[in-house]
Amino acid sequence: MRAVDIIIKKRDGLELTKEEIDFFIQGFTEGTIETYQASALTMAIYFRGMTDKEATYLTESILHSGDILDLSAIHGIKVDKHSTGGVGDKTSLVVGPLVASLGIKFAKMSGRGLGHTGGTLDKLEAIPGYNISMEEQKFIEQVNEIGIALVGQTGELAPADKKLYALRDVTGTVESIPLIASSIMSKKLASGADAICLDVKVGSGAFMKNVEDATKLATLMVNIGKNCGRKMTAILTNMDEPLGLAVGNSLEVIEAIQTLNGKGPKDFEELCLEVAAHLVLAAGLEQNIEAAKKRLKQQIDNKEGLNYLAKLVAAQGGDASYIYNPDQFPNAKYVLDVLSDKAGYISHIDALAIGNAAMILGAGRSKIGDTIDHSVGIVLEKKVNDKIGKGDVLAKIYSNFENVSDSIKLVLDAFAVAKNPVESKLILKIVK
Amino acid sequence: MRAVDIIIKKRDGLELTKEEIDFFIQGFTEGTIETYQASALTMAIYFRGMTDKEATYLTESILHSGDILDLSAIHGIKVDKHSTGGVGDKTSLVVGPLVASLGIKFAKMSGRGLGHTGGTLDKLEAIPGYNISMEEQKFIEQVNEIGIALVGQTGELAPADKKLYALRDVTGTVESIPLIASSIMSKKLASGADAICLDVKVGSGAFMKNVEDATKLATLMVNIGKNCGRKMTAILTNMDEPLGLAVGNSLEVIEAIQTLNGKGPKDFEELCLEVAAHLVLAAGLEQNIEAAKKRLKQQIDNKEGLNYLAKLVAAQGGDASYIYNPDQFPNAKYVLDVLSDKAGYISHIDALAIGNAAMILGAGRSKIGDTIDHSVGIVLEKKVNDKIGKGDVLAKIYSNFENVSDSIKLVLDAFAVAKNPVESKLILKIVK
Repeated sequence: MRAVDIIIKKRDGLELTKEEIDFFIQGFTEGTIETYQASALTMAIYFRGMTDKEATYLTESILHSGDILDLSAIHGIKVDKHSTGGVGDKTSLVVGPLVASLGIKFAKMSGRGLGHTGGTLDKLEAIPGYNISMEEQKFIEQVNEIGIALVGQTGELAPADKKLYALRDVTGTVESIPLIASSIMSKKLASGADAICLDVKVGSGAFMKNVEDATKLATLMVNIGKNCGRKMTAILTNMDEPLGLAVGNSLEVIEAIQTLNGKGPKDFEELCLEVAAHLVLAAGLEQNIEAAKKRLKQQIDNKEGLNYLAKLVAAQGGDASYIYNPDQFPNAKYVLDVLSDKAGYISHIDALAIGNAAMILGAGRSKIGDTIDHSVGIVLEKKVNDKIGKGDVLAKIYSNFENVSDSIKLVLDAFAVAKNPVESKLILKIVK
Repeated sequence: MRAVDIIIKKRDGLELTKEEIDFFIQGFTEGTIETYQASALTMAIYFRGMTDKEATYLTESILHSGDILDLSAIHGIKVDKHSTGGVGDKTSLVVGPLVASLGIKFAKMSGRGLGHTGGTLDKLEAIPGYNISMEEQKFIEQVNEIGIALVGQTGELAPADKKLYALRDVTGTVESIPLIASSIMSKKLASGADAICLDVKVGSGAFMKNVEDATKLATLMVNIGKNCGRKMTAILTNMDEPLGLAVGNSLEVIEAIQTLNGKGPKDFEELCLEVAAHLVLAAGLEQNIEAAKKRLKQQIDNKEGLNYLAKLVAAQGGDASYIYNPDQFPNAKYVLDVLSDKAGYISHIDALAIGNAAMILGAGRSKIGDTIDHSVGIVLEKKVNDKIGKGDVLAKIYSNFENVSDSIKLVLDAFAVAKNPVESKLILKIVK
């Protein structure tokens, strides 16, 4: 088998076999196939696409390039969720405790990565003492004991993906649906869950710019997961504005706590209930989505979800009193209002711009090794469709330095204002 | 400027600027742009193509990566020809002397390369004493004195092409029309001629499988040449069979001598006259193609073309008596007949198979450094459209070893036989 023949076969639009894909990915991972051949193949995939079969083979091949978590020692169905990357997305902090409180095992391992705001791990580290490092054995024991664990990756999951993504990033093939799908799914499958709910963001600031492309990506990921024996759901959600109100690490933890107290932003609560409900269905606890949501709402009303977040924090060494008394989170030194210079209805809030504004305050990393300031960020006071007048407060900036003119400008420019109200919908589509 | 942005721009079907193409080719040649980025860009070019403008910039960029011959010290118009690679193609050996005999300067520098049969240089080296190495100054002097020189490359013409071609070869982008065009034209332009006639082969054994693709390639090369101030013609020729009858080095020289004596195979003579006539027009010696051909035929009849071949050979140290008495060429030890096992009309002769049969006899190189046996090869006894009976001699194999069963099988299988005669045409189209 020769790498160049595999490239030419894909270039000419023919379907690659499992053997050909394995040969290429193994060779690439081990260095016997050159990076310049891998970049040519990925560009050919960009143009030709992949069948579901090919994308499944590719995912499995990447998956088998590294460690695969064996969660079989955990009793019952293990669930996981994944978002393609939203600004203000603290869904795991609500969904995990909610489903765990119903006896469903939520075993989540996250990578750290870069981003406007920290990932789930960074948000959890805003809670004093919370430790994201855990041996695999201890991880399994904790899930068996309290039903939930949220930790950093141990071992090396899907190293081929890391190598391939770094190459795609500098050779112009990031935006390929089968390559995105296999990258996400290889890591999700390596984490060992039986049922996975995916949140695919759609909008100008997301990878997927429109519902059509997002549906393709979601459908492919669902099919890959099913082909590998997992229960799958994907939810397409609008990224026309940040999720919820808070963007920034401790600010988002506080918003998750409010949501588990039944006092969260409407859009964020809606998404949490939707994601969690699909996991409840996958676990077989309820037969339809409305019943599942009703049951989950009870877990908010009776504070059981909140209790499970506290249990999680305590089990991983954190100070659980913060969950019941979030006023303890340290405040940023300065809180500044961003005032509207227009009147009308908010039609769009550029989520990436808000994310960038938070990042330059210190809430996220622009490169590996940057430290995160957990206390800073942005809290929106207005959301899409709200009526505003000149001088109204659009958002508050939480900062530890006084001069935040760059952030203010970014936030102000992020708000688009129209004469009339617009229709806005968070959940666009369910793909099963 | 970043390489990845240039890749993405081409991937998305936008036109690259001269600056972007120069940046990429210079960076690739110097090693500041990675090979994996170059292979991604070439794959994107494979799918998106290039405008004439982009292909011209690319050609110029490759051209300027190395030495460029300055032929300005040669008086009058300098002409050159190039074929995209045919089996049995000894056209330069006839066209060069013919046009030189009319006072047109034929200044040709060839690379050696690999091939089924040797290149023009290898054919000339079948003449005892012929020396292909020559300093640039001496080359210019010889063309000024006798009007013709046929030598090997001095200096380093278009090193970016060498590097790029090697990369394309292992990453599946050899078959891209703008990449083929810029590869050929960068080397042709570096050789410094004012007028160039290109012979673009069409057929199952050629790079271009059909007239449509060949027309695209020819048109693009003609436009690139014109954009760079050269007079250009391209001739599309059928490669449904080898050109002429002889395939092999001294066998082809002998056929060129026969042709300059007016006794060459009809198809080969036709092509030589066509190519030479376009160079005569480019030099301004005649106003129409028929007049140019008539004038060239006179140079065959009066043996002036033959005399110029002899002058060329003598000037480069070869024994010119071979030109007037080709019986002196050493014979191969064995001459074997390939007999037909069918009756009917020959419909196709697979030129590449005949080339391979000659190569395994020793007439060509399968890898750099292979030595060539000048005396061996194949001479066809029948051509497309000839009527044959079972047992007729299709071809003669000239070999220095007795067992040539592999070559016999290749040659026999190369002949396709039909019930009825087929229409066959050598010159398919002229692109100016």
